Amino acid sequence: MSVKHLGTGSKDVPLQEGKIRLYSMRFCPYAQRIHLVLLAKDIPHDVVNINLKNKPEWYLEKFPLGKVPALYVDGVNIYESLIIADYIDEKYPQRPLYPKDPLRKALDRILIEGFSRVINLLYKLYINPVMDALHLAPILEEMDHFEKELAKRGTPYFSGDEPGMVDYMIWPWCERLEMVRVLGGDQFKVPKERFQRMFQWSKGMLEDPAVKSHYCTPEQHARFLQSYQAGTPDFDNILV
Amino acid sequence: MSVKHLGTGSKDVPLQEGKIRLYSMRFCPYAQRIHLVLLAKDIPHDVVNINLKNKPEWYLEKFPLGKVPALYVDGVNIYESLIIADYIDEKYPQRPLYPKDPLRKALDRILIEGFSRVINLLYKLYINPVMDALHLAPILEEMDHFEKELAKRGTPYFSGDEPGMVDYMIWPWCERLEMVRVLGGDQFKVPKERFQRMFQWSKGMLEDPAVKSHYCTPEQHARFLQSYQAGTPDFDNILV
Repeated sequence: MSVKHLGTGSKDVPLQEGKIRLYSMRFCPYAQRIHLVLLAKDIPHDVVNINLKNKPEWYLEKFPLGKVPALYVDGVNIYESLIIADYIDEKYPQRPLYPKDPLRKALDRILIEGFSRVINLLYKLYINPVMDALHLAPILEEMDHFEKELAKRGTPYFSGDEPGMVDYMIWPWCERLEMVRVLGGDQFKVPKERFQRMFQWSKGMLEDPAVKSHYCTPEQHARFLQSYQAGTPDFDNILV
Repeated sequence: MSVKHLGTGSKDVPLQEGKIRLYSMRFCPYAQRIHLVLLAKDIPHDVVNINLKNKPEWYLEKFPLGKVPALYVDGVNIYESLIIADYIDEKYPQRPLYPKDPLRKALDRILIEGFSRVINLLYKLYINPVMDALHLAPILEEMDHFEKELAKRGTPYFSGDEPGMVDYMIWPWCERLEMVRVLGGDQFKVPKERFQRMFQWSKGMLEDPAVKSHYCTPEQHARFLQSYQAGTPDFDNILV
């Protein structure tokens, strides 16, 4: 596993037999989705981190879109985090992350799709160097829907008694919610009473082995975001 | 099948035993995706068309988002055209529309996802009452990618020797390309030499029974779009 992010002038890391390769960036929430799926299903893989500010020539040659996450399988890169996650779940049948029933699976996928509204709102907050607490309200309104859904499902996780696809696909941004408070102060605190089930869910997620092994603290996320906002993303030093 | 679009003051149509219900709008390209999948797989279904300008009270009560397409299954509406299409393909195993191999399926899904760039560009053109030929160029650039992909695959359809998920998911907007020429004149003509394979593909698609039974002529599409642009979408009279 290459911890350091490879940039211009670097060389690709040779593939190891029997492993699949994930091209990633340590702080990318979309890439985190794929780490979680690979870890939860215990699939042998290696990770090559890409410096997204100065992308390696070999990466752009291999994959002109130059995006992460990308999963390198049989000589091609597959991309789009939800498509990669579904691919892995179909290809590796151990610990299926979706319900077997097609209708319940469709409802899970609708839930994941709907979370993109939270992602877009959070992103608007992130790219703003001066955070405005006004922007928290619409995020919380979207999160209400997830609080209600947990109540409706009556299980500790969206996927039941253990985390599944919905849980892993929304987690990366939930992990970063506390970072918003670290950066913007108490006006960004998520109200505990309003999100009792989501807080309980979050506590459970933090105990999940897959979540644990790719976790960053709110302070680490905040430091990375600040370096990113300053135009000098510090890919390598924050976790050292 | 209710041809007329139901609006405010209407009543829902009773469900028939053994049929699934598609809530649709005759000129909606996203809904067309679902019609094509249901027709291609020969699944007994009925269609209730919704007047999207004056949505029926019963529809909003049943389904507050009020969107189409929606598939009513076991007391719930599922929505998002790609999720509905995948659901149908999983639930009804006859004539599978995706490759069995998870990697090839993922590549098909990436291709469909990438087509959303064409959709967004076309939409920008649609909402503009005065069409600017400058906007055709980026659409054709995106379409180049599909022309190349057909060459790479070496088959008449993206899915092989007969249309599959990729073909049906992109068709509705391809059907409407000729409408752009009808409305905007010859400056919007798609160059035949540049898209030889796509023209051949289109000819094949027009012979497909599913495509045929939900087809509208470019002139019908144009008349609907003009009524839509004028703020008075004519849902009911164009096909009569």
